[in-house]
Amino acid sequence: MSTLYRIDSSVQGDKSVTREITDELERAWSAALPEGVVARRDLLSTPLSPAVWTHALAARGTEEPTQEQQSAAGLAAELASEVLAADALVIGAPLYNWGTSAHLKCWIDLLWTDPRFAPRTYPLAGKPIALVAARGGGASAGAPQEGWDHSVPYLLRTFGTDVFGGDVTLIETELTLADLSPAMAHLREQATDLRARSHELARETGEALAKLAA
Amino acid sequence: MSTLYRIDSSVQGDKSVTREITDELERAWSAALPEGVVARRDLLSTPLSPAVWTHALAARGTEEPTQEQQSAAGLAAELASEVLAADALVIGAPLYNWGTSAHLKCWIDLLWTDPRFAPRTYPLAGKPIALVAARGGGASAGAPQEGWDHSVPYLLRTFGTDVFGGDVTLIETELTLADLSPAMAHLREQATDLRARSHELARETGEALAKLAA
Repeated sequence: MSTLYRIDSSVQGDKSVTREITDELERAWSAALPEGVVARRDLLSTPLSPAVWTHALAARGTEEPTQEQQSAAGLAAELASEVLAADALVIGAPLYNWGTSAHLKCWIDLLWTDPRFAPRTYPLAGKPIALVAARGGGASAGAPQEGWDHSVPYLLRTFGTDVFGGDVTLIETELTLADLSPAMAHLREQATDLRARSHELARETGEALAKLAA
Repeated sequence: MSTLYRIDSSVQGDKSVTREITDELERAWSAALPEGVVARRDLLSTPLSPAVWTHALAARGTEEPTQEQQSAAGLAAELASEVLAADALVIGAPLYNWGTSAHLKCWIDLLWTDPRFAPRTYPLAGKPIALVAARGGGASAGAPQEGWDHSVPYLLRTFGTDVFGGDVTLIETELTLADLSPAMAHLREQATDLRARSHELARETGEALAKLAA
């Protein structure tokens, strides 16, 4: 059975832009592949933590893990199995305070502790991955904060050919705070255009991932 | 009373390289300023979490915060007060899986929720900050993984002039796994040199911070 695995990490719940776009991608995927399955993990409703990662790491370094360490290693194995079993991934990755979502970093760190994600094994080689990134301000070429997005480059490194080996499509939107911030009023039209383009790319990518999984 | 505030985030405990170097800096600071105080926060023994950050964020968006949200906002205020009260900071920042330590990112995210860390207020303007970064492999110019350190650029952005406004000294070491990894045996001499240089810079920086705080 073909599976799309969807990870959300936004803390904005219903107001989340990344969820809006992963929704769009999921709809397109399901429409193109009605017999497919969508598996989900929402890091807002089922959060991970750096402490759990620490326990999972410790479990690997001992022959007599504590119950806490065993349970953390079990969770890491579950996360790794979910990812490996999927035909395609879609990852919602908002930028928070110019860095990677801590929810998402905990998830990635836990994956790394699983032996199936050992360094230089490219565990996601060839797997299609849609990375849905969003940021409140602007960090693209020419913006006053050009280069301040320190999350997307890290995520592309991790999920792309360098580390996990996936085949990543980046769906990126910015200026998501333009509608709320009076200081960004002059950017609203541009923000609307960017959002519409991300929706379009999400639809196209959802269809393309469905075709690959069919 | 002059205070050095020390944050550690390594999960390696006694084997941590960043702790070894923050220790060195702390010793130099204390020797130069015996009447000074060292305040500490160790994120391994008192971990934060993305869930606490989510609650602290939610506390700011409501007039009737839940007890959980109040408690998270209280913790954020405590962290912010500790940082603001210090004359100088030293931050231990290991690279984990090519990204920022999740422990450290949770700490930074919590600081951002405090009103005293509002965007564009440069709350640490002029405050001396020693950033002690370490990584197991190599990511400097010429290394096969050149540019793969996605933590240091983010931390310099955050603590430096762009965001929090501090006066940052970077103390950076790499190849810390050379002694443990047979594949890195040829890099051991270089690793030893780098480590020695970091210790020297930590001593100089500790003394310089003490002079500024005296």
